[in-house]
Amino acid sequence: MMAARKTDTRSRSGGTKSRTKKKSTAKRASEKTNGKVHTIGSYLIQRLQDYGITDLFGIPGDFVLQFYGMLEESPIRVVGTTREDNAGYAADGYARVHGLGAVCVTYCVGGLSLCNSIAGAYAEKSPVIVISGSPGMTERATDPLLHHRVKDFHTQRDVFEKITVATAVLDDPMTAFQEIDRCLEACVRYKRPVYLEIPRDCVHKKAIVPHVPDDSQLESDQNALRESLAEAKELLEASKKPVIVAGVELHRFGLREEVLKFAEKHQIPMCATILGKSVVSESHPLYLGVYEGAMGRNEVQRYVEESDCVILLGTFMTDINLGIYTAHLDPGKCIYATSEKMRISYHHFHDVVFSDFVKSLSKQKMKVVKRKIPDQVRPPQVEFKVDPTQPVTTKHLFQSINQILTDDSVVVTDVGDCLFGAVDLTISTHTKFLSPAYYTSMGFAIPASIGAQVANEKLRPIVLVGDGAFQMTCLELSTALKLGFNPIVIVLNNKGYTTERFLQEGPFNNIPDWKYHNITDLLGGGWGFEVSTEGDLEKALKAALANKDSLSVINVHLKSTDVSPALTRLAEKMSKQL
Amino acid sequence: MMAARKTDTRSRSGGTKSRTKKKSTAKRASEKTNGKVHTIGSYLIQRLQDYGITDLFGIPGDFVLQFYGMLEESPIRVVGTTREDNAGYAADGYARVHGLGAVCVTYCVGGLSLCNSIAGAYAEKSPVIVISGSPGMTERATDPLLHHRVKDFHTQRDVFEKITVATAVLDDPMTAFQEIDRCLEACVRYKRPVYLEIPRDCVHKKAIVPHVPDDSQLESDQNALRESLAEAKELLEASKKPVIVAGVELHRFGLREEVLKFAEKHQIPMCATILGKSVVSESHPLYLGVYEGAMGRNEVQRYVEESDCVILLGTFMTDINLGIYTAHLDPGKCIYATSEKMRISYHHFHDVVFSDFVKSLSKQKMKVVKRKIPDQVRPPQVEFKVDPTQPVTTKHLFQSINQILTDDSVVVTDVGDCLFGAVDLTISTHTKFLSPAYYTSMGFAIPASIGAQVANEKLRPIVLVGDGAFQMTCLELSTALKLGFNPIVIVLNNKGYTTERFLQEGPFNNIPDWKYHNITDLLGGGWGFEVSTEGDLEKALKAALANKDSLSVINVHLKSTDVSPALTRLAEKMSKQL
Repeated sequence: MMAARKTDTRSRSGGTKSRTKKKSTAKRASEKTNGKVHTIGSYLIQRLQDYGITDLFGIPGDFVLQFYGMLEESPIRVVGTTREDNAGYAADGYARVHGLGAVCVTYCVGGLSLCNSIAGAYAEKSPVIVISGSPGMTERATDPLLHHRVKDFHTQRDVFEKITVATAVLDDPMTAFQEIDRCLEACVRYKRPVYLEIPRDCVHKKAIVPHVPDDSQLESDQNALRESLAEAKELLEASKKPVIVAGVELHRFGLREEVLKFAEKHQIPMCATILGKSVVSESHPLYLGVYEGAMGRNEVQRYVEESDCVILLGTFMTDINLGIYTAHLDPGKCIYATSEKMRISYHHFHDVVFSDFVKSLSKQKMKVVKRKIPDQVRPPQVEFKVDPTQPVTTKHLFQSINQILTDDSVVVTDVGDCLFGAVDLTISTHTKFLSPAYYTSMGFAIPASIGAQVANEKLRPIVLVGDGAFQMTCLELSTALKLGFNPIVIVLNNKGYTTERFLQEGPFNNIPDWKYHNITDLLGGGWGFEVSTEGDLEKALKAALANKDSLSVINVHLKSTDVSPALTRLAEKMSKQL
Repeated sequence: MMAARKTDTRSRSGGTKSRTKKKSTAKRASEKTNGKVHTIGSYLIQRLQDYGITDLFGIPGDFVLQFYGMLEESPIRVVGTTREDNAGYAADGYARVHGLGAVCVTYCVGGLSLCNSIAGAYAEKSPVIVISGSPGMTERATDPLLHHRVKDFHTQRDVFEKITVATAVLDDPMTAFQEIDRCLEACVRYKRPVYLEIPRDCVHKKAIVPHVPDDSQLESDQNALRESLAEAKELLEASKKPVIVAGVELHRFGLREEVLKFAEKHQIPMCATILGKSVVSESHPLYLGVYEGAMGRNEVQRYVEESDCVILLGTFMTDINLGIYTAHLDPGKCIYATSEKMRISYHHFHDVVFSDFVKSLSKQKMKVVKRKIPDQVRPPQVEFKVDPTQPVTTKHLFQSINQILTDDSVVVTDVGDCLFGAVDLTISTHTKFLSPAYYTSMGFAIPASIGAQVANEKLRPIVLVGDGAFQMTCLELSTALKLGFNPIVIVLNNKGYTTERFLQEGPFNNIPDWKYHNITDLLGGGWGFEVSTEGDLEKALKAALANKDSLSVINVHLKSTDVSPALTRLAEKMSKQL
């Protein structure tokens, strides 16, 4: 569906703004322009605001200082981070909650430090705008060895070509203004990162001719759309066991409520993928749980795989979403629609815009059989008990976390067993579960949680992070402290890379056991807790919840061999397959 | 000189081994091979050892676990770090001391996290071998969305093409063995990073035919070499004021002693660039100091720029080496030789191998006038006093550091005023000063110091780092602790990005003031000191020096506006230029 010519016209996600709204904002922007001649820098700042960006993340450096100076005078807040890669994760977290994010750094030492976090945003379709300063065009005349240079002055852009959907160097006022439009549009359309580079002597260069923002739109091929809808209707009406698998793109493209209405109208049961977890409220009566092959609950897997019509909407078919390929879906029984692909049974439709398909499907009149949801398929009610002297297990930890979640919580998980274990958490409202469940980059959670709270200060992050990942990015809690944020960071301290122990045991899986709760002494603020027993955990969670004005770090000692029920399920299933 | 066909034949730097030596080792390797058929993995490990690698740095991940398993059983020690970028810096530091370094990580989340540190190694000519695992070739057959994937399975290699001198994917036993040879040879020849990717199902693939390592060598064009030497001789013999500017490549290519002999034979005064600082012993009677335009001492600048024959050997003409272009060298009076360029006056020679030129120049018979070194050009003897109640200034801090340096110290500086200030330190032996003085990536010093000490455990790192850089990579001290290392880390705590304040003041230059000395509480070991006065500093340095079995972190409070004498000199000169 990448080739389609019309995009989503009513995105509901916070910052992206709807196309109609964007149009009028853009209009207003160009009206404003009448009074004032934009510079490349001021136009970029204006367009960021048009798209709803109120905050961006980054670290200054000499090649981007002029632009930082302009940002400082604009309504956009610049949130400084400790490292550039963390600024990337924070912008990603912000984008996932707000709809669009941005990060601004200096040349190469800044930009190349962003590669991994921006690659993650690319993989998981999080729209982040990367802005980098660079050496001035006049400085480059004699091809000098300016500091921060790698091979030549194209190196950084060449690298970002590989990990973004659009790049531009804003080195010429004749082209810079439409290049800004083109890249920002691509970011919003494809929900993937873009790269804009501003040579430092171009920041204040003025438009040569008045520039009017481009507002062209892609549209679906109406015949292809009609045919795909007719087929979908036919399959659904013939189906005896329909089920919806909701993916993360429903949130990215603002189609969450549309799909919910569709499911409710026809009473079709729904589940989510782990990457899309919480796209559907997990307390909704039609909700079954996470479908991810053997990693999810058996009952859910069977219910989905027995279906004669699986409607997969905005779902990435990644290895982790499919439970490392323990999922078994028959394509002949699937309607599969994403922003990149549209497939019914074994044939594909091109030029059908994802949102057009979802909205039209939702409006379509049809008769769908009501499929029963047996009680055992629904998320089980776990009786929760605390035995104060018992050592904490991973299973008990996740049950305890489930008790403290409220409508204001946003669960942000890192990679490893904290991600697998989180499958079984119940997230009651949407957009309240963030994880790098496809790209699985360690260190995501803490900086992303800061981005999420910058996007919505009312959210309280519950951050689940392994000890290995904590060692990578924990220092970003400095920024949470600076902003007066109150995340509760739970460190699953199992003394090493536990999920790797399953694959290949070796001393390289062991890591030093820090006093994680003492990070507050280094940063000079926040509360730290060390937890070994269920009693400790109960007290620490209570105290952390009451500590509303500051961050809390809970160091939970776990056995290095103890794992979550989800990882146990996966290991069992895979050993049977071998 | 990149096009030359013969490389250095007697590199003296520790790990690189001389070419002759390498040849015989390679021979031995291929003799060994007679008994055993190598796999791609075992051959790579064998070749790393042939080139003198005894330690490598990295973090495991599932796509590289098989290779980690093999490394574990080999004589090569794997040093685990907290983050991949730090593993890159550590490998860089190791390479600078040992002659060649290596880092081994998993696919994309690992590799793309290395971009910035490897780009720095590229820019500053530090030979680092990047080894990355990747998805197996059979897994890729249906082009699935495997975790850690970005665009396609070429993405990571495409990125590394931009920041290394050679890349290879070892996906075929027909080509993998010569590809390993080619890349390792390029790394040693160009002293720049290379990239080797091993799909996880290829690690154990066996050689199809017995492989003999390639030993072809590049050679100088003898006519060009002869002509360049004759010209150099003529210029030198006619010169009344010759001077040598020694660059970092003399160390990288093992030519340090050769140049020293040359200088001593003809009594030619020498200075160094900041990137090459300590290539020449700074207590040598012919040594003048660091030449870097206005950043160096005026007397040195004048002495060099008045010369009628400046012999620049292995010197990068970077902006920082040239004191942000406050240096003024007349090319008409220069003999300029590096591994990439050979220029005398305004004409260039191609196909002259750097080491051939340096060695032949050194052997050349000629009569050179003895140039006097006036006393005021020599490094000044500073009278050092401590006033216990005085607040510490940057100037006093550097004078104090100068007092504690011994032959076992290796000074590792980070970026910012700790680099500028370090210009005035006296480094008495060679290879004892490491800094990212061209690429200037913040966060280099702490992880690089670990690499330096892994390369030579007898060295004691004196690490100079600003508060901003400390916030980026301080946690890598965990690895120093794990290895029982004893660096003394001095944090120049001036509450922000001080060098940037000179360029554009703004709140984005302020950073939170941590209790840096408390990092020992988080890591669970080492000594921390908080210093405000000259008396505090004296005591802390004394205690840290006595603490030989563990690391020390000294948090030195400085005024946010206080800067080093070198930065003051630069600021003065630049304000005059405007």
